[in-house]
Amino acid sequence: MKSQISSALSDFFFEYETPRQVLVRNRRVGVVCRLIQLGVLAYIIGWVFIYEKGYQSSDTAVSSVFSKMKGVGYTNVNGAERVWDVADYVFPPQGDSSFVVMTNYIITEGQKMGTCPEVGEICSYMFLFQGQLTGVCVPANKTCEVLAWCPVENDHNIPDPPLLMSAENYTLFIKNSVTFPLFQVTRSNLVEGIDSSYIRKCLHDPEKAPLCPIFKLGDIVKLSGFNFETIAKEGGAIGIVVDWTCNLDVDIKHCKPKYNFHGLYGNPGETDKARASVGYNFRYAKHYLDGSVQKRTLLKVFGIRIDIIVQSLARKFDIIPTLTAIGSGVGIFGVATVVCDLVLLYLLPKREFYKNMKFKYTDTQAQVSSTIAYELRT
Amino acid sequence: MKSQISSALSDFFFEYETPRQVLVRNRRVGVVCRLIQLGVLAYIIGWVFIYEKGYQSSDTAVSSVFSKMKGVGYTNVNGAERVWDVADYVFPPQGDSSFVVMTNYIITEGQKMGTCPEVGEICSYMFLFQGQLTGVCVPANKTCEVLAWCPVENDHNIPDPPLLMSAENYTLFIKNSVTFPLFQVTRSNLVEGIDSSYIRKCLHDPEKAPLCPIFKLGDIVKLSGFNFETIAKEGGAIGIVVDWTCNLDVDIKHCKPKYNFHGLYGNPGETDKARASVGYNFRYAKHYLDGSVQKRTLLKVFGIRIDIIVQSLARKFDIIPTLTAIGSGVGIFGVATVVCDLVLLYLLPKREFYKNMKFKYTDTQAQVSSTIAYELRT
Amino acid sequence: MKSQISSALSDFFFEYETPRQVLVRNRRVGVVCRLIQLGVLAYIIGWVFIYEKGYQSSDTAVSSVFSKMKGVGYTNVNGAERVWDVADYVFPPQGDSSFVVMTNYIITEGQKMGTCPEVGEICSYMFLFQGQLTGVCVPANKTCEVLAWCPVENDHNIPDPPLLMSAENYTLFIKNSVTFPLFQVTRSNLVEGIDSSYIRKCLHDPEKAPLCPIFKLGDIVKLSGFNFETIAKEGGAIGIVVDWTCNLDVDIKHCKPKYNFHGLYGNPGETDKARASVGYNFRYAKHYLDGSVQKRTLLKVFGIRIDIIVQSLARKFDIIPTLTAIGSGVGIFGVATVVCDLVLLYLLPKREFYKNMKFKYTDTQAQVSSTIAYELRT
Repeated sequence: MKSQISSALSDFFFEYETPRQVLVRNRRVGVVCRLIQLGVLAYIIGWVFIYEKGYQSSDTAVSSVFSKMKGVGYTNVNGAERVWDVADYVFPPQGDSSFVVMTNYIITEGQKMGTCPEVGEICSYMFLFQGQLTGVCVPANKTCEVLAWCPVENDHNIPDPPLLMSAENYTLFIKNSVTFPLFQVTRSNLVEGIDSSYIRKCLHDPEKAPLCPIFKLGDIVKLSGFNFETIAKEGGAIGIVVDWTCNLDVDIKHCKPKYNFHGLYGNPGETDKARASVGYNFRYAKHYLDGSVQKRTLLKVFGIRIDIIVQSLARKFDIIPTLTAIGSGVGIFGVATVVCDLVLLYLLPKREFYKNMKFKYTDTQAQVSSTIAYELRT
Repeated sequence: MKSQISSALSDFFFEYETPRQVLVRNRRVGVVCRLIQLGVLAYIIGWVFIYEKGYQSSDTAVSSVFSKMKGVGYTNVNGAERVWDVADYVFPPQGDSSFVVMTNYIITEGQKMGTCPEVGEICSYMFLFQGQLTGVCVPANKTCEVLAWCPVENDHNIPDPPLLMSAENYTLFIKNSVTFPLFQVTRSNLVEGIDSSYIRKCLHDPEKAPLCPIFKLGDIVKLSGFNFETIAKEGGAIGIVVDWTCNLDVDIKHCKPKYNFHGLYGNPGETDKARASVGYNFRYAKHYLDGSVQKRTLLKVFGIRIDIIVQSLARKFDIIPTLTAIGSGVGIFGVATVVCDLVLLYLLPKREFYKNMKFKYTDTQAQVSSTIAYELRT
Repeated sequence: MKSQISSALSDFFFEYETPRQVLVRNRRVGVVCRLIQLGVLAYIIGWVFIYEKGYQSSDTAVSSVFSKMKGVGYTNVNGAERVWDVADYVFPPQGDSSFVVMTNYIITEGQKMGTCPEVGEICSYMFLFQGQLTGVCVPANKTCEVLAWCPVENDHNIPDPPLLMSAENYTLFIKNSVTFPLFQVTRSNLVEGIDSSYIRKCLHDPEKAPLCPIFKLGDIVKLSGFNFETIAKEGGAIGIVVDWTCNLDVDIKHCKPKYNFHGLYGNPGETDKARASVGYNFRYAKHYLDGSVQKRTLLKVFGIRIDIIVQSLARKFDIIPTLTAIGSGVGIFGVATVVCDLVLLYLLPKREFYKNMKFKYTDTQAQVSSTIAYELRT
């Protein structure tokens, strides 16, 4: 028994199978078949391997973004001069990846809790947005009386031109770090050469300074297809896409961010320009005590909402996709042979001859005995 | 030499190899084998291609979300009427994808820096959360004296019913835009047909208006399995999942969002309903000057935290996965042949006969000369 | 015609093809070839299936994070004692996944809109960050007069040691829930065993309590390679990575988070320690009314920005990658046979003999008739 297994094992190790093949010497079939095979080979090597880099596996990054605005705005409303610094015009203040830069506002000062007529709404109006109806109708201006922060905000006239046109000159500094967990690679947008002395004097320009992480707000707006005055008046949303598309098989220093700008929240069916639809606002209140009365200053803030969106795709050589590509390439090679065989066995005039060459038949029951005799000779 | 190469080349181009095969005419083996092959074919075409769409490559989106609440709340605490508008009850105010809607609160007014006894903690208590111990014990209520914002907040009794039950009628408007970078496709949740006139009057309903991006807060709470009064009292966290599962091989207008709602931060091992655990609060202070004394109003805010989570998966025809699927399908076809061969060569009674048909032996050294003679006839 | 089709069908179903093969009995070639085949098999089973788990498909999660700080800070600046509670030192207050804990500050109290000299900037300086130039030069301190919130902030001396060194003892509680949409699995970082009684008394420790979701701020800073006093003085950014790497083929309870800590926004080319660069600040204003004059308290906040980053990868058995791996494995097996054939047909001394065994030639036109006669015998 033992010797049987060892002999089977030695048989297995000392022999190997290789398929018997017919070498078809036919010019037309040969050329067709070789061309198909070369095509498959060219596809596998040229397209899968070189163009699509099928020998690489890919990963997306986890990322972290810090933003910082700089610049001072100035308004002069009916002679009242005011400056607006970062603490006044950025919401939220702490440097998030998504924030709003105020460019226009409607201010309602000295609001206190009380009853007053609504603004511009006739009494029959069903929905209340400004306060709780008291049930009293105010004949003077044909509106309902509401319990609300009074006087109620009147936002029917948006200041035009926008009050903070000077926002165009604000600058935005972006710090972004990405980590590709699969490849254990961490990169910052302050890549090689973007050191503190360079940052101090650079300004982002798609052509001349594509890696400078300091952006003029006016440039961001222009590059995303908006007109600054339009967006500043009613607000709008802009995405700054930091695109990390990296081939980690080459030196890590070629893994650099690209910055793209585009309008967000557009309506479909419109062209790309029109999609950059305007309109972004929110309300914000500053509370204070006047004597012993709680009051607030309500700001309807129109502004540019900026979303810094990190988009990442790193690729690196990996043995698994490589061998999967080779293995399935071999499979497709097999398909090429099948196609050639179809030509050979069904289309050529001499198909019967080739069929005889390629196939050996084990004939049906009746013929078996004679087949065995026939086969014994082979 | 040159002619040798060109002759080898012409040989290579004018001939091709095709494997010689035995055509086994045996009903049982034939049927088994054909069924296995058909099964593999059905799997490749039916499952990989049609069901799992293995001919497509997939991509996830980068996205941007803007939210806007509307509605007015009303409270009447001991006769003091008050309304709460968006600027009062949404944190943060600027329309983020993650925000809190206040539904209940404990207010501590007129806090100023000073020393006062802690609330409800006996002196031996080790951890301090309300202030810095001064070392003095206050016998009257058996607590320690702390340096803190005094009077110290007493949050042992949460208002019940919640003060802002009217929050149930607030509405939430979601704007969401997604971009699939691989396919260069951008979509907004304001899809075809969801225009501004529709938005003005619609309200989201999973059955009747599944695409309307305006949600009643009470509906959101109900759809995520909460009871509004319970969650409003102690707060809770709800995820609104905007699900973009798109097949980009069909018309882009079929790429529409689906909205799902579920409670967040549950404990494991509980059922899905119970997982919707309640409890969400944070503290928020409004500072003011009373005379020359810095004071603050401390709000312990109980609210519904809403996380708008974008989940996306787009698929589109791609030549690489198609050919990989075909290639590996051919490979599995090969496995089918191997299985049939095992049956043929090891299980059938006539296995020796089929072995002789399939294999030709190159015998070991001793037999070579006779083998050559034998082979010459073949 | 009908019978023709049915006969063709029955022919198709009752027969099957299997390739004819040569069983080469040659020790050297056999061993080489078997070793190559075993190597391929070992690679497919060992590497692709067992090590890389190629039979699984993978998915990343959508996630939601809630954070809550606890602890009280204490400052004593020139005898003015003050405590800082959560409502004072966390920005934003509502428990986001990205927030700043104040550890140091420069306070400028009682600012009002007016004109005053800039701080520390000589008149020729081109960029304005503090206000709008009035055009007046103030000889006394050689600076320009600006319209600004006056007095202008002087941030040249950062308090050292940092005012809120007590921040080291603050604790952070993280609630995190992840959902893998492909596998319909939801997990919370409060896994089995991490119940409310455990949470009340535990403190995260990488060795002893790796699953406790309560972190001491000082530990976070230390584990990310910073010195607390350094980072507290000028601020810094730390990423807390919650790593969900899950094999869903085993029991779901093994799907647990891992917490890692590292500094963000470093410069490249530096070592990992040095990459943890310091410097994080923003400005924040509290507005109030003094009499009828609008004033504000400006805080330049230095703090530790904490980004809670969720990184996820779940894997589960899936029939498609399994069969793709098998199929392409069979393809690579074919490559092994091709390599052996090259050895057999081009390198061995008896190559001509083996060529004769493997190939049958359909000779060119001239030879056809004799070939047919010759073939008839086979």
